[in-house]
Amino acid sequence: MSVTAAQGFEAAGVTAGLKSSGGKDLAVVVNRGPHKTGAAVFTSNRAKANPIIWSQQVIADGVVEAVVLNSGGANCFTGSFGFQTTHQTAEKAAELLGVSAGDILVCSTGLIGTGDEVFRGKVLAGTTEAIAALSADGGDDASLAIMTTDTKPKRSVVSRDGWTIGGMAKGAGMLAPGLATMLVVITTDARLEPAEADAALRRATARTFDRLDSDGCMSTNDQVTLLASGAAELRPDLDEFATALTEVCQDLAEQLQADAEGASHAIAIRVVNAASEADAVTVGRSVARNNLFKAAIFGNDPNWGRVLAAIGTTDAAFDPYDVDVWFNGVRVCTQGGPDRPREEVDLTPRATSILIDLRTGDAEATILTNDLTHDYVHENSAYSS
Amino acid sequence: MSVTAAQGFEAAGVTAGLKSSGGKDLAVVVNRGPHKTGAAVFTSNRAKANPIIWSQQVIADGVVEAVVLNSGGANCFTGSFGFQTTHQTAEKAAELLGVSAGDILVCSTGLIGTGDEVFRGKVLAGTTEAIAALSADGGDDASLAIMTTDTKPKRSVVSRDGWTIGGMAKGAGMLAPGLATMLVVITTDARLEPAEADAALRRATARTFDRLDSDGCMSTNDQVTLLASGAAELRPDLDEFATALTEVCQDLAEQLQADAEGASHAIAIRVVNAASEADAVTVGRSVARNNLFKAAIFGNDPNWGRVLAAIGTTDAAFDPYDVDVWFNGVRVCTQGGPDRPREEVDLTPRATSILIDLRTGDAEATILTNDLTHDYVHENSAYSS
Repeated sequence: MSVTAAQGFEAAGVTAGLKSSGGKDLAVVVNRGPHKTGAAVFTSNRAKANPIIWSQQVIADGVVEAVVLNSGGANCFTGSFGFQTTHQTAEKAAELLGVSAGDILVCSTGLIGTGDEVFRGKVLAGTTEAIAALSADGGDDASLAIMTTDTKPKRSVVSRDGWTIGGMAKGAGMLAPGLATMLVVITTDARLEPAEADAALRRATARTFDRLDSDGCMSTNDQVTLLASGAAELRPDLDEFATALTEVCQDLAEQLQADAEGASHAIAIRVVNAASEADAVTVGRSVARNNLFKAAIFGNDPNWGRVLAAIGTTDAAFDPYDVDVWFNGVRVCTQGGPDRPREEVDLTPRATSILIDLRTGDAEATILTNDLTHDYVHENSAYSS
Repeated sequence: MSVTAAQGFEAAGVTAGLKSSGGKDLAVVVNRGPHKTGAAVFTSNRAKANPIIWSQQVIADGVVEAVVLNSGGANCFTGSFGFQTTHQTAEKAAELLGVSAGDILVCSTGLIGTGDEVFRGKVLAGTTEAIAALSADGGDDASLAIMTTDTKPKRSVVSRDGWTIGGMAKGAGMLAPGLATMLVVITTDARLEPAEADAALRRATARTFDRLDSDGCMSTNDQVTLLASGAAELRPDLDEFATALTEVCQDLAEQLQADAEGASHAIAIRVVNAASEADAVTVGRSVARNNLFKAAIFGNDPNWGRVLAAIGTTDAAFDPYDVDVWFNGVRVCTQGGPDRPREEVDLTPRATSILIDLRTGDAEATILTNDLTHDYVHENSAYSS
């Protein structure tokens, strides 16, 4: 049910002809209220797609009526024509829904540079068709329509006493860096003020999507949106809400990691006993972005030297000769020297755990990433052809 | 001739049994004087191999008698035993040469974590054998003995009026980040004071090896050494010397790039009209490290959107809608929008040029890198097995 699991929402996913595959490629999610609270976080890339530039204005007042999302074209670096396309998409949805265009978010994903007149025509016609198809069980269709190289839709639902959070996601990346664009829409029927929704969303994404770093490449189109209808007529405990929202975000993040383009391992890098949480994140991210480490995992090689070399490039507090490293539960490095023989490590399962003990404090963090594979190279070299 | 092209130097390369291939794997370069000036720059990785820790002490007084280099084992993260191996190597060379161990540099390259008793025994025996084999035309043998995954030795010689600079290199990486460890030894018969040698070396490496960024991974063992014998009995014009040294370093850097593990393209990313040289380097490096860009080049795809997305992750001065991008001489992006059709770009040649015009100033820099290929993944996943 994804975005229509919570009360007060309708959604649809239709085929606008944007994807060469002929699959669904345009989704609309509408908040029927009574409250129209919205919050969103965006890519931190300074090269932003037109939908990002538009949506950052829309979200400013914390009021969102609907989100229009398309796959099959990123509408990024398409100039003022592309921005007008985004604007016209919002105008079209607003007109049909009887609301203000300034309350319509737009998200796009696909190849950068795609956004000509043909694209515009298909997006506008698809928006019309999707709004005509809106229904209270359209969440699954919407989650299909935002897929690009995803092999399966990503959906998650969590319910608490009287209210529900449901979401959908596409992509294989993360909020900051991203293998492909990550688009996420999460809905709830809990009643939230805009500032409350914004705080909960930032808290949840900081520990979930922000720590998924599949390939270190930052997308121009990433957006995570939270819509709150208040249809359940309940104000949640804000801490409990943020915890439940984090649960949904983590579930979706793990689904994104599991479906990362060309990956053969889903790697969780847990850094413990760091001097600070920031240090733990820095160390985990540095290892996650190290191509030599990632290629070693692809080859089922517990190459702890590459882990230490990656840690050494950071400014985190650590002593290279007081670090322990485990691969899948086997301590292969103790105090910066060899420990158990590499033959004891079985790296054939897809799920891979790396544990790094920095022995400098008591903070920790986990970064999710993937290995570097032949298929990753192939898929990303053939992407636009 | 590499390191024996300049007067006053002897070298040798022998088979110590460290490499499973059975090839030469231990080299010694000796400065016969009359001057024993030395300068060196090292990896900035905080996880440093034992030879780096040792050599950083040796170089402090600017006096170097000889360099002992081995392939077939990095002697990194091998604990105090490994440090003692490095120390004993210097002691052995010093004893046989009749000099102080404190004037012997040691360099190692190979798998991290390799450095047990067998390794030590072979290194010490090989050092003895190499010193017995020293000769004034041993430079070529030395350049063979430092190779690891290199498919060919890297040598360069430049002569000016009365003095010569010659060098050898191994690896496929760079001084800061490095695909594999980069080891370089450069000799000259010009007469230089230690401070002059140090200044010239830093100036030369900053614009050559430091701008070679094959895969963004920083090695634990990188070292570039300059030895000056003064045997030509000439003090060079220092500016002319630094220019000639830069020429040798650039030549060696391009040979490293040409032989990068698994690469199918040698890519020069030239960033022009930047607000500062630092901005130009930052932008070039960000593009050079972007896996999506690198995979696109492998696939002969002029995907300028990935170039702009990589620029957008930096803090360099630029306007995403006032950037031009050329692939192999074809301007595919003008002012952040599409220009010439991608079909006009021929990316089949190995030599690939990317030109990025930031239109914010008049500074420029060029970063050398390689594409991300199936062979890169294969070679680096199989490295230790």
